[in-house]
Amino acid sequence: MTSQRPTYPHRHLLGIEGLVESDIVALLDEADAHIAFNRQVEKKSSALRGRTQINLFFEPSTRTQSSFELAGKRLGADVMNMSVASSSVKKGETLIDTAITLNAMRPDVIVVRHSQAGAVHLLARKVDCAVVNAGDGAHEHPTQALLDALTIRRNKGRIAGLVVAICGDILHSRVARSNIILLSALGARVRLVAPSTLLPAGIERFGVEVCRDMRQGLKDADIVMMLRLQRERMTGAFIPSTREYFHYFGLDADKLAEARPDALVMHPGPMNRGVEIDTAVADGAQSLIREQVETGVAVRMAVLEALARNLPNT
Amino acid sequence: MTSQRPTYPHRHLLGIEGLVESDIVALLDEADAHIAFNRQVEKKSSALRGRTQINLFFEPSTRTQSSFELAGKRLGADVMNMSVASSSVKKGETLIDTAITLNAMRPDVIVVRHSQAGAVHLLARKVDCAVVNAGDGAHEHPTQALLDALTIRRNKGRIAGLVVAICGDILHSRVARSNIILLSALGARVRLVAPSTLLPAGIERFGVEVCRDMRQGLKDADIVMMLRLQRERMTGAFIPSTREYFHYFGLDADKLAEARPDALVMHPGPMNRGVEIDTAVADGAQSLIREQVETGVAVRMAVLEALARNLPNT
Amino acid sequence: MTSQRPTYPHRHLLGIEGLVESDIVALLDEADAHIAFNRQVEKKSSALRGRTQINLFFEPSTRTQSSFELAGKRLGADVMNMSVASSSVKKGETLIDTAITLNAMRPDVIVVRHSQAGAVHLLARKVDCAVVNAGDGAHEHPTQALLDALTIRRNKGRIAGLVVAICGDILHSRVARSNIILLSALGARVRLVAPSTLLPAGIERFGVEVCRDMRQGLKDADIVMMLRLQRERMTGAFIPSTREYFHYFGLDADKLAEARPDALVMHPGPMNRGVEIDTAVADGAQSLIREQVETGVAVRMAVLEALARNLPNT
Repeated sequence: MTSQRPTYPHRHLLGIEGLVESDIVALLDEADAHIAFNRQVEKKSSALRGRTQINLFFEPSTRTQSSFELAGKRLGADVMNMSVASSSVKKGETLIDTAITLNAMRPDVIVVRHSQAGAVHLLARKVDCAVVNAGDGAHEHPTQALLDALTIRRNKGRIAGLVVAICGDILHSRVARSNIILLSALGARVRLVAPSTLLPAGIERFGVEVCRDMRQGLKDADIVMMLRLQRERMTGAFIPSTREYFHYFGLDADKLAEARPDALVMHPGPMNRGVEIDTAVADGAQSLIREQVETGVAVRMAVLEALARNLPNT
Repeated sequence: MTSQRPTYPHRHLLGIEGLVESDIVALLDEADAHIAFNRQVEKKSSALRGRTQINLFFEPSTRTQSSFELAGKRLGADVMNMSVASSSVKKGETLIDTAITLNAMRPDVIVVRHSQAGAVHLLARKVDCAVVNAGDGAHEHPTQALLDALTIRRNKGRIAGLVVAICGDILHSRVARSNIILLSALGARVRLVAPSTLLPAGIERFGVEVCRDMRQGLKDADIVMMLRLQRERMTGAFIPSTREYFHYFGLDADKLAEARPDALVMHPGPMNRGVEIDTAVADGAQSLIREQVETGVAVRMAVLEALARNLPNT
Repeated sequence: MTSQRPTYPHRHLLGIEGLVESDIVALLDEADAHIAFNRQVEKKSSALRGRTQINLFFEPSTRTQSSFELAGKRLGADVMNMSVASSSVKKGETLIDTAITLNAMRPDVIVVRHSQAGAVHLLARKVDCAVVNAGDGAHEHPTQALLDALTIRRNKGRIAGLVVAICGDILHSRVARSNIILLSALGARVRLVAPSTLLPAGIERFGVEVCRDMRQGLKDADIVMMLRLQRERMTGAFIPSTREYFHYFGLDADKLAEARPDALVMHPGPMNRGVEIDTAVADGAQSLIREQVETGVAVRMAVLEALARNLPNT
């Protein structure tokens, strides 16, 4: 009798919602192996040789698109980037026509980022290939949640039972949403820490703790996960000023002292230093922020490989 | 005695004008084989391994540039994209200096799109490598005409004798021009259907039928080839309004009923749904629009391979 | 006893300053071999297979970025381009955060262009990989100086003892700066030719000749190296008008006649024809301008290979 590793059974990765624990663990386990791979001198496999990966980004993104691009190239895929700036969106072509057009070019995987929640699901229904959601509006960003989970697991040895404080602009954050679902599924105690203006209505029903005071929210936290405050929220209705925001909700050494002494700090990047996080903490001994980026490439490799395996005729 | 397939004998592909029937058929036959290739799991050959392909786009284009990029990558070429936005055009470098510079980098093929008719011919005279015209002003777009012809041939079994109605903005369309020349060379009966304002002066001398009424123009057509109405023509001198244009020249089910019952519908994309074509027809059973995109990658692979074979020292 | 070729011993290539003659010669010798390689039909090696090269351009550049991209691809590296337009700089991420993020993706080489002198050195201190300066402000552009030197050596057989007149906007030119250091190190007699407004204060202390009159400055020159006049300097304080600039400092056949009869003409490109150089001279028999571009790819290949060899664990 052979013991079998769980494998990711789905055709797409559109969100963490709908996945079960073994789906998530399968991806994390595979990704873990890729971290050592990427540290080698020759980090090139032929797992996706002859496969076509299209990165279709309707919103610009340095780190996510780069991470997917390197992941695909290191696996030997033919990778093609398409960004809005150079695309037919200017000519008034619809999302769906773009999807159908790309699909006719016979790609194996399309990685999509779009400003509208739901755009990626819509696109997935129109194509024959696998689709990865690289962020859609305020909805989901599943590979970010996976890389966060893997980073936590590699540093804490587990996820179940940890207190994870997710802090900042919960309201507009797909990172928060995917993380809440994933971390809950894996047994973490998730606590959301934000001012009332940045919390979705009825958030308590999600089965998470909610805290409107940062110091209280960080009490006994094992993980402090900061969120990016989008530049467009920095003025007006959501926060009084970035200065005041930093004072009450920015993570500095003083507030971090409320968490457990071995608490670790995360941020999906890019950071607004001095707004949601202090430079000393971002670059400090408790920070996992660089490691998150490394883990990101490994997670995307695992996702691409898993989806390629699940395509028909393979 | 061996029967020999015809081969494409030229150094460049600058237009359909000047090609003879056997040149065209050679490319169509080769392209046909690539369609099955692209449907495979591992769609990667080494035909162009070690070859350098530069895609030099002075006008943005999702589908044409992507199609050439995937074609080159699947053949194993090193593909480099250069678009205007990131190019030295901003610094005032001329087209010719750009060409000479790129040529000195020893590419094997340069694929060029430019807003000026004739720019691609000019460039071809300055370089040592092969040049493919990916659209120059209102002049030619030869790979589009080739992919249209292959799509027709695969669906109708032939081109000679078919009635092909090309409908819409003939005046500004390089797609129309290349198609008129190619389809005539292969024995189709070409009929141009457009309002007077969108027909070039003296077009009748091209040896084609001309029809200023859409319903009449579609009578007995085997193929209805719609053209894109450029956004910049939608107001002002050329058409009264997009609404009226759609009423008189937009393809809907009602007008399509004038064509043969087995007529097929084509569009080079990107489509303006509701302007030159109705969504129900674009996505309907008679539409070949998705298939055109698939055929496009195969045609570009055939062209790249043929040109690479014809380079010196090969 | 084996005679050993000198090898480039450094981890980065941040500038010519600080290199010794044998460092420079090692790179030139390696680059020389790559010129023949690039003229082959199959110009592809596996020297950098499995290596990741990131081209991080904060300023747009057709020729330099293309040259590095082709160099890396022909050596078999996975090459990723990141330009400012699509980068997180828009989101306010700092140079350093960008560097740290990219570094965490485990690249082997980062090629950087930045508008600020010193930015590349700063970045190099933050990463584990090798860094190549592809131009930083008015500071250095070392691969340009290397390709210029190799072009001279291939045409004149030597560099030592040659009179090289560098003409034009010395004040703002990183090309001039790198060339002055390199050519001096290799024993050329460097003469700077420019109006007073385009010369740095105290330039005489660099150990070079300085000449404020073009005809005098070209006397007996073996090499006439023209500099690009940046568009933003063409009005206002630096020159009275482009017309007058051309009259006094533009290289035409008449002024070139002051140089040695076998003098050769160079320009880093892109050229402003009719401003700093006349078209007849740019395209004439004494011009090396096209050859400089070809040499550029070879030099960048040599640099990438040398740096990859010097990385740990190789």
